[in-house]
Amino acid sequence: MKLFVVRVLHKGVITKMEKLLYTGKAKQMWQTDDPEVLRVVYMDQATALNGKEKDHFAGKGKAANAISTLVFQYLIQHGIETHFIKKLSDNEELVKKCTMVPLEFVTRNVIAGHFASRYGLKEGKVLATPVQETFFKSDQLDDPFINESATVALGIATHDELAQMWTVCQEVDTLLTHLFAKAGMQLVDFKLEFGHLSDGRIVLADEFSPDNCRLWDLKTNAHMDKDVYRRNLADLTTTYDKVLARLEEVIAEEQ
Amino acid sequence: MKLFVVRVLHKGVITKMEKLLYTGKAKQMWQTDDPEVLRVVYMDQATALNGKEKDHFAGKGKAANAISTLVFQYLIQHGIETHFIKKLSDNEELVKKCTMVPLEFVTRNVIAGHFASRYGLKEGKVLATPVQETFFKSDQLDDPFINESATVALGIATHDELAQMWTVCQEVDTLLTHLFAKAGMQLVDFKLEFGHLSDGRIVLADEFSPDNCRLWDLKTNAHMDKDVYRRNLADLTTTYDKVLARLEEVIAEEQ
Repeated sequence: MKLFVVRVLHKGVITKMEKLLYTGKAKQMWQTDDPEVLRVVYMDQATALNGKEKDHFAGKGKAANAISTLVFQYLIQHGIETHFIKKLSDNEELVKKCTMVPLEFVTRNVIAGHFASRYGLKEGKVLATPVQETFFKSDQLDDPFINESATVALGIATHDELAQMWTVCQEVDTLLTHLFAKAGMQLVDFKLEFGHLSDGRIVLADEFSPDNCRLWDLKTNAHMDKDVYRRNLADLTTTYDKVLARLEEVIAEEQ
Repeated sequence: MKLFVVRVLHKGVITKMEKLLYTGKAKQMWQTDDPEVLRVVYMDQATALNGKEKDHFAGKGKAANAISTLVFQYLIQHGIETHFIKKLSDNEELVKKCTMVPLEFVTRNVIAGHFASRYGLKEGKVLATPVQETFFKSDQLDDPFINESATVALGIATHDELAQMWTVCQEVDTLLTHLFAKAGMQLVDFKLEFGHLSDGRIVLADEFSPDNCRLWDLKTNAHMDKDVYRRNLADLTTTYDKVLARLEEVIAEEQ
């Protein structure tokens, strides 16, 4: 992994050195003075086809950060352990440093996207029971589908760790299906990631924004997530701002 | 499904009508006079790339039928319930009619084939624990990988049925790893299929031949399975005949 070092200047004097630890599809992770804390920067960028397409969207990082902050705060209030510390600015937040589990945990309530095409199914049908799928995080391999048996055999996670993470996914599904329904949206599917804190505990990490989930308007079925970009349906930032406004209203009512 | 009807002639008189129920990549399934019994015909044919390549190999059907008969008889002697009734001729056997579970159950002891390429791994490493993978049988969809969660949500099989079939796969793995090792071959991976008998019971069905497993010579690591065709390494029928000769010798010693 390449490390970039940025000299942070204050009145022309270098006050600290920050290392860029990771640049993802929509975020950067930076070291801070505290070895246990990282700074996340949400970029004004969206990618499709696993990074093969990339575009700039002014205001997208701000909206994604605001939505993810609201969702993580909501989950923490309801007992979910996460890496989230606080929002720092429009585009930044502080999180606890984690060693990430190299898996994407996808929970599906409704048939959509790759799941529909993979099994020749029509989008839109509610699944009899939520489907849980894991993908091995590797851009080079296009994040291949992986099951529990291979995950354990390859030493990626143990059965117990997987059970613990899937339980959190189910809890998050229940909590957020309720939250988004109050905000007039159906939580179709979503992707979560987990990491180990320095003491080994597994916590929910990464983000929760319309970059990583599908939200359909409960009345019109309109897409309110990154599919508006993937499928060229509407402006991305405008869509994310709508999701944010609805969430803010519902969360204000709850408190 | 297309049904072909064949008039079976005896001294110029039609004695019975037989319906072709199914033509697969290497086998045909025919109705018989007994509604609970089917006749399987092993064809002198092999396919690769999920049927996109197809070639004729004289004697291949005979060898595959002989190997599968020996393996199924061995499994039955060791308590595995199967659809197998008896070998009828060089290329034919009789089996109990099943409603097939539309899943392929793959058990992997050693990293090879798609598993290696999917996860960017080198072929040949023994897995810490055998990996079990299911694929949804659909030529149109290229037999997509499916996990337990989706299998249950889509109504393909229940958790209990999957557990029952995976238990048989483990038993078969133990029995055949031993058998092939005695015959100087490593059982790298194999595919099984299951079906419901008319009373609902699940039994092992399909076949067990080098069409559906990987066998490596324990001394030379030479491929002794359909990979010799997929990778253009050796003559298919000659290879299958070698596997058959080794199995016959070992099974004769056991009895």
